[in-house]
Amino acid sequence: MKKIGIICKTGRPEPVDILKDFLPWLRGSGYDVFLDIETAQILKVEGYSRSQIPELSDVIIVLGGDGTMLSVARLVGGRNVPILGVNLGGLGFITEVNRDELFEAVGDVLSGKCSREERIMLTAVVYRRAEMIADFVVLNDVVINKGALARITDMEAYVNSTYVTTFKADGLIIATPTGSTAYSLAAGGPILYPTLNSIVLTPICPHTLTNRPIVLPDDCTVEVILRSASEDVFLTLDGQVGFSLRNNDVVEVKKSTFKTKLLIPPERNYFQILRTKLKWGER
Amino acid sequence: MKKIGIICKTGRPEPVDILKDFLPWLRGSGYDVFLDIETAQILKVEGYSRSQIPELSDVIIVLGGDGTMLSVARLVGGRNVPILGVNLGGLGFITEVNRDELFEAVGDVLSGKCSREERIMLTAVVYRRAEMIADFVVLNDVVINKGALARITDMEAYVNSTYVTTFKADGLIIATPTGSTAYSLAAGGPILYPTLNSIVLTPICPHTLTNRPIVLPDDCTVEVILRSASEDVFLTLDGQVGFSLRNNDVVEVKKSTFKTKLLIPPERNYFQILRTKLKWGER
Amino acid sequence: MKKIGIICKTGRPEPVDILKDFLPWLRGSGYDVFLDIETAQILKVEGYSRSQIPELSDVIIVLGGDGTMLSVARLVGGRNVPILGVNLGGLGFITEVNRDELFEAVGDVLSGKCSREERIMLTAVVYRRAEMIADFVVLNDVVINKGALARITDMEAYVNSTYVTTFKADGLIIATPTGSTAYSLAAGGPILYPTLNSIVLTPICPHTLTNRPIVLPDDCTVEVILRSASEDVFLTLDGQVGFSLRNNDVVEVKKSTFKTKLLIPPERNYFQILRTKLKWGER
Amino acid sequence: MKKIGIICKTGRPEPVDILKDFLPWLRGSGYDVFLDIETAQILKVEGYSRSQIPELSDVIIVLGGDGTMLSVARLVGGRNVPILGVNLGGLGFITEVNRDELFEAVGDVLSGKCSREERIMLTAVVYRRAEMIADFVVLNDVVINKGALARITDMEAYVNSTYVTTFKADGLIIATPTGSTAYSLAAGGPILYPTLNSIVLTPICPHTLTNRPIVLPDDCTVEVILRSASEDVFLTLDGQVGFSLRNNDVVEVKKSTFKTKLLIPPERNYFQILRTKLKWGER
Repeated sequence: MKKIGIICKTGRPEPVDILKDFLPWLRGSGYDVFLDIETAQILKVEGYSRSQIPELSDVIIVLGGDGTMLSVARLVGGRNVPILGVNLGGLGFITEVNRDELFEAVGDVLSGKCSREERIMLTAVVYRRAEMIADFVVLNDVVINKGALARITDMEAYVNSTYVTTFKADGLIIATPTGSTAYSLAAGGPILYPTLNSIVLTPICPHTLTNRPIVLPDDCTVEVILRSASEDVFLTLDGQVGFSLRNNDVVEVKKSTFKTKLLIPPERNYFQILRTKLKWGER
Repeated sequence: MKKIGIICKTGRPEPVDILKDFLPWLRGSGYDVFLDIETAQILKVEGYSRSQIPELSDVIIVLGGDGTMLSVARLVGGRNVPILGVNLGGLGFITEVNRDELFEAVGDVLSGKCSREERIMLTAVVYRRAEMIADFVVLNDVVINKGALARITDMEAYVNSTYVTTFKADGLIIATPTGSTAYSLAAGGPILYPTLNSIVLTPICPHTLTNRPIVLPDDCTVEVILRSASEDVFLTLDGQVGFSLRNNDVVEVKKSTFKTKLLIPPERNYFQILRTKLKWGER
Repeated sequence: MKKIGIICKTGRPEPVDILKDFLPWLRGSGYDVFLDIETAQILKVEGYSRSQIPELSDVIIVLGGDGTMLSVARLVGGRNVPILGVNLGGLGFITEVNRDELFEAVGDVLSGKCSREERIMLTAVVYRRAEMIADFVVLNDVVINKGALARITDMEAYVNSTYVTTFKADGLIIATPTGSTAYSLAAGGPILYPTLNSIVLTPICPHTLTNRPIVLPDDCTVEVILRSASEDVFLTLDGQVGFSLRNNDVVEVKKSTFKTKLLIPPERNYFQILRTKLKWGER
Repeated sequence: MKKIGIICKTGRPEPVDILKDFLPWLRGSGYDVFLDIETAQILKVEGYSRSQIPELSDVIIVLGGDGTMLSVARLVGGRNVPILGVNLGGLGFITEVNRDELFEAVGDVLSGKCSREERIMLTAVVYRRAEMIADFVVLNDVVINKGALARITDMEAYVNSTYVTTFKADGLIIATPTGSTAYSLAAGGPILYPTLNSIVLTPICPHTLTNRPIVLPDDCTVEVILRSASEDVFLTLDGQVGFSLRNNDVVEVKKSTFKTKLLIPPERNYFQILRTKLKWGER
């Protein structure tokens, strides 16, 4: 591991501040560094477009939050480049290193002490009149969501071509274990242990009160047919990318062949993160 | 009670079918009937605009569902005209009469056997830069809701000018007891007995998992300040009327001076409706 | 207000520690102090039985937690003696004063700066074969609860003699607004603003998933008839007193004529307590 | 498959009624039938003790409900005998054949048209002062549950020796996918697809509102240490067997080497059962 990519959350002062010490330290230690162009410009050093960085790097360090991690994960896609997330604030679900722990964690990465945790990703393909019109890869979740003014949405769901039910709801979340602690949790979904071979279907504000989150094996194919005349229903991908759906569109979701490789510091564990993020210390 | 207004759900064949027998029966019994113009045209009889009907009528019969009832309730506003809801399908929460029970229920209304149940309504006023820019009256709920593509929304809430919390959520529902069994229920809110002097604040998919529905006295003023740079946040009124909100808009909600007067058949009771609508018979 | 009762949580060192400074301060300021006998013995001063203290005092100061407050509230019953709760740990829902704020808060009480907040209480009466066999007064909640080994329990509920439903559940909570943030909240109930004229019926783990908490006016009478052959179903009162129920026992719950008068420091408000106790600051 | 065991729910008239036609049909078709002794006595035919039946039979037909199925599954344990559940009422989650479908379904079984679905089982072992004092095998769930009069219970949970959290709750459910639609669902847990290699930890009425159900891989070991001075905490197994726990007892739960083999009629599917049992047809 000689080539280190660095991608920062934009519009925030912390990464620049961190890099003032961090860049010289990395270069002094003999590493090649590939910094995203926006941050590079501020620091007046050489930079690279975000999309170039995965192919240039042996490892990518993300200075940001869970949101930046999600976009880097999609950027990396099928390349075998592990990612280390460094949170600018407290801790994130997938940015498991604090700013204070940065140098130590990167030392652990470079000396091979970090474990790699593979996280499944999902592909979502949209078919309109039997024609594929869009496809996406996500780390967290695929969400069908009505707009604020739309009426309740009917979503006809199938698992491996077997009819499940027609959800009448504000929307439907299909989340990976990684995504289970994001939107799905807010909508009432369970926590899935990150290495579980499962996905979860969580309806958003279902009209039918007995529609509960369903955990499925990750080798199944979920199809959702939108049954809504409204113009105001969207597919959102990791909460970051949007795509407008039409009546009778079919959204097909299955496990991607891509996996995200997260670097986990030796002393970190998932339950510790849950306790911290969900404040399990006390009521 | 000599003057009977009739307002029907549009685009449905059932009301026309019902009226073929019902209109002659009413007129033969000596009542003046004021029928909404859309339905009247289909039947080729004299009709009246919906907004005229409340001032012409001693009582209004609604042939439709809960949605039609909500719009008639807003139309009636402060006028002292009671409403009888006749459901075209099964039973509604506020359309408590079946099609089969129509003649008997109307007989009960006209002979004074129906009780009148007063239901509180809410006013919602929107202030933008300290200026009032819109106001509404609703029977069910006032909802602040983000669009499908917007990020999580910050809503700073006050009760009687005392700070409550800043909800980070998809939205916030402020519902009357009547509205408690509509959207609020789907979002996890409690059922409020219809004559309760209370309203309920129900956050939609709150990011903070301990944000639970709060029931408040109905003589308090709820203010919500939108803290969101997104262009995609809306105020919706009874799920039927929409209004686009901007950052720092203030939505002030309090009990209206208007009340909706529902006519309740003698043998009907609220728990019976709950049991039927929520399928409490068995699991 | 010259006569001050003091009741402490037993078995804890903090009250004794506090009283070493507090007692001389009160007596030096000219107040008569009536201390509970258990604590008095440790301090080797004169003490009074807990049941005597309400009739001897103009105001009662509780050094303990919410649990001690509940038992003092039941002890005070119908006497018009206000209570100030001082929490030994952080803050409680009804022990709204910290140890650090003790002297200031008591100064506020004695100079009349504290407001009195009236909280409704409930009576629960048990009838067996039409005969009243027990009655209780509570500040928080009346709970019917099956034991760990009992099967699911059938509880036939009536409001003002109108049938509601037969809950098939682990139990049923009937809570005051004060009790809404205790067991009812853990079972999925809403938060009721403390001065609301309402009670809430919250089923515990209902088998029928659409059985949701119901908020009722506090002037109604709730009757629950136990339909369970199991020997292992109990009535619990404020989580502190237990009573064994039998098949066909009727538990009748209504608002008590007694009210608890809580003393609230001038700068304290309910939403501040919610924010602190429920950690609304962040996720 | 020549040898057919039949085990019936006791104390119910339907099995006897069914067997009047069913037994002669089976015997006339050349099958050996092994009927449970209680039912056999009523029918005045030869019977066998329940515990003998699994070793005598190639297949067991259960006439009862989900509860009877659970006890037969435990009885079968590690023997490779498949079970067909025939429900006396509507449909059960694991008694997937109606009374009306009995002859057809048994025909399908005997002609090999039924598929066999393997369902994981759990073992629960109790250690007291480092000594194993009890062990159990279950198909649905292992539950630690406080009694009605006990205070909230502290349960220190570990997954593969890593600390998770200390649940402060009424109890804790560890359920298989099969058990996910039983008690766990009532306590707010998700539905796990039946063939999922997962288990779910669902806290019962947790005091910490952010304690949400956690889905774990089924090859992990869950340990729960009871931290409660109360005498009134129990381990219950499939809701049918109880065992009294003491402070500091350790309950270790992992996947059993035993699996239950359910016979599934060809036209039956899991989502159909969910739709029927959870009334997903309408609100």
